[in-house]
Amino acid sequence: MVHPCGEPEPLQGRSLQHMTDVRVNTVLSDAVLSAIRTVIGTPDGPVPLHEPVFGPEEEEYVVRCIRTTLVSSIGPYVEQFERLLAEYTGVRRAVAVVNGTAALHLALRLAGVQPGDEVLVPALTFVATANAVNYCGAIPHFVDSDMRTLGLDPLKLGDYLAEIAEVRDGGCFNRRTGRRIKAVVPVHTFGHPVDLDALLDLSARYRLELVEDAAESLGSLYKGRHTGSFGRLAALSFNGNKIVTTGGGGAILTNDDRLANQAKHLTTTAKVPHRWAYFHDSVGYNYRMPNLNAALGCAQLEKLPEFVERKRKLAMRYRDAFAPVAGVSFFTEPEFARANYWLNAILLEDRCADQRDRLLEVCHEQGIFVRPAWTLLHRLPMYNESPKMDLSVAERIERRLINLPSGVGLT
Amino acid sequence: MVHPCGEPEPLQGRSLQHMTDVRVNTVLSDAVLSAIRTVIGTPDGPVPLHEPVFGPEEEEYVVRCIRTTLVSSIGPYVEQFERLLAEYTGVRRAVAVVNGTAALHLALRLAGVQPGDEVLVPALTFVATANAVNYCGAIPHFVDSDMRTLGLDPLKLGDYLAEIAEVRDGGCFNRRTGRRIKAVVPVHTFGHPVDLDALLDLSARYRLELVEDAAESLGSLYKGRHTGSFGRLAALSFNGNKIVTTGGGGAILTNDDRLANQAKHLTTTAKVPHRWAYFHDSVGYNYRMPNLNAALGCAQLEKLPEFVERKRKLAMRYRDAFAPVAGVSFFTEPEFARANYWLNAILLEDRCADQRDRLLEVCHEQGIFVRPAWTLLHRLPMYNESPKMDLSVAERIERRLINLPSGVGLT
Repeated sequence: MVHPCGEPEPLQGRSLQHMTDVRVNTVLSDAVLSAIRTVIGTPDGPVPLHEPVFGPEEEEYVVRCIRTTLVSSIGPYVEQFERLLAEYTGVRRAVAVVNGTAALHLALRLAGVQPGDEVLVPALTFVATANAVNYCGAIPHFVDSDMRTLGLDPLKLGDYLAEIAEVRDGGCFNRRTGRRIKAVVPVHTFGHPVDLDALLDLSARYRLELVEDAAESLGSLYKGRHTGSFGRLAALSFNGNKIVTTGGGGAILTNDDRLANQAKHLTTTAKVPHRWAYFHDSVGYNYRMPNLNAALGCAQLEKLPEFVERKRKLAMRYRDAFAPVAGVSFFTEPEFARANYWLNAILLEDRCADQRDRLLEVCHEQGIFVRPAWTLLHRLPMYNESPKMDLSVAERIERRLINLPSGVGLT
Repeated sequence: MVHPCGEPEPLQGRSLQHMTDVRVNTVLSDAVLSAIRTVIGTPDGPVPLHEPVFGPEEEEYVVRCIRTTLVSSIGPYVEQFERLLAEYTGVRRAVAVVNGTAALHLALRLAGVQPGDEVLVPALTFVATANAVNYCGAIPHFVDSDMRTLGLDPLKLGDYLAEIAEVRDGGCFNRRTGRRIKAVVPVHTFGHPVDLDALLDLSARYRLELVEDAAESLGSLYKGRHTGSFGRLAALSFNGNKIVTTGGGGAILTNDDRLANQAKHLTTTAKVPHRWAYFHDSVGYNYRMPNLNAALGCAQLEKLPEFVERKRKLAMRYRDAFAPVAGVSFFTEPEFARANYWLNAILLEDRCADQRDRLLEVCHEQGIFVRPAWTLLHRLPMYNESPKMDLSVAERIERRLINLPSGVGLT
């Protein structure tokens, strides 16, 4: 088999590379397209990266909700949605909010993040992770990724903290900036759990609050336990591109009743309950999920176990389809994880990395809406002054990764 | 007619007052209850302060939305909702967001409010007005009310600014605190427009950005023009208790295309449009209204002109019913306004003010969910250090005001 990206060793001269470019590119893009087609077939229209699947239940619940006129922030679907979520994730309490960003913002505030603190977040994540830190007046501090999970690397972070951090006065401080490092936020990237045991150990050692960004990992387990149940708090998202959706929505998970009550209080403008008086005891937020959106969510949650199975099957079909494709590997969960495979991902071999954009181009031309990883957050203008560790693994992933269409409807 | 609160002149001694208390209270509460019953009849269940009215159109649009699977932040209903809103209000652009608080937060940011600035807001308003200022890192500076409008008093504010403010370097500065006063936020309280001409004049004189909190005044006109079209930006709300609802939702209005484009950009996480790349050029927000909620809103907006008429009729019926009730006056619009009468309000005469809570109690016992005005914001713990002017009119309104059930369905 001709390797689609040429010789395994780096090419010695530009002329040789030029000679092989056209043929090589076509071989790789043909192979990738063909593997994707093996899985998704050739649908009539374009294939989005992710698309929700609804049935008559969603319509029924939402219409029922409208008929009660309780479409806003108070209503039985919100309570039911929270109860179903808590049951499914095995977490004591779930508090439904307007979106995943709001959930993470509030989770960080409840974890005690204060203006001027630093919060450890992966560089490889959606921008909302860092924005939520910013909304607290805190500074994201970027952490490298683990090639096994695509998420934050607890071991490499441990080495880094040993170098730059010290624990004193019951907290962790960055010796270089003088600022307190209050929390660490792992992201279960594309649904793949980070190595939580190692991270729990590290956060205990450095007195860091562990707040899980589980926006992408509803349905994903780490050693049999649901992601989002390990940290002091966690954030979920039900945006339209997630495994289940409420249109827009999110939730805060916690095993701590006091924090859950505070979360409910702060998301409802910190209003002190009273029959008629409007008294608010702190700066709160208008962050509650509307009952209308929760109605959609209740119908979706009933299907979640089935959706997880279907997404895992889709992933296994991609894995098989990409097995014979040279130069590309399909990303699979490590042994400790049972992922929801929210977004399936392939990784180009390093020597094929320069063909990522061409592959994206070719797939888009065919109406297959693949995408690359997010631009690493330390490269965004508002975060390029933020502290960071060596990010070479995240950079390597970013150069090489392509997400594949992953909607439940593709199975 | 016996005045329900005793003699018009202040009572001279406690003993006389005690003698008349029981009879007096009963007379007043009976009269108020009877006036309310004249208007709303005696429905079977409790009567909420406000309740949305839906028909088959709402169900149809929402179901249609679910069938497209476009329930999240992108979709044709969002665009239609924005277009309908702009048309109805006569404003160039409307940008739909998750709620009124988010709309005001972003409007203030777009108006140039920076951390450490002061923003003039009425003390008599829902807490979200001040919270939005707080989210910008700015400080609310509380302003007194105008008895004619229940909103901010531009003339009294003018006298106050003459005393404490100076214009220099193209901006307005508080001589007492040294901070810049960047903006003024009138609230069209319970749907009643403030005196916008006087306020426009004042804001021009003091180089203040005028940002209208029109959360309560969709459908209300000032001198024939829609509230929300006078300021540089305005915020609307479509919470479940508003004249039309999207479950949860809000919008930013502006005649400035550049600001509208920025609003759209910042509410969609400041993502730079690209077929696949995730690049964000500033700290943005996840503030876009989901298409599901916009679908509900589109059906509601079609009915808005009719809802305004029905609410105005309801108000006139309350006015007539309360005309013969001594000790109480029904609040009506001044000559420059055509209000949506979002929440109808009665004002007790000063000498009856001490009976406000008893009236609230009696009505609640009867399942009629009246409410008082909001606790004035300078009395809330998080804002009691904020700068403020004399607030005697707002205090007088707060002591005396009761909102009456005002849902469109009551007509």
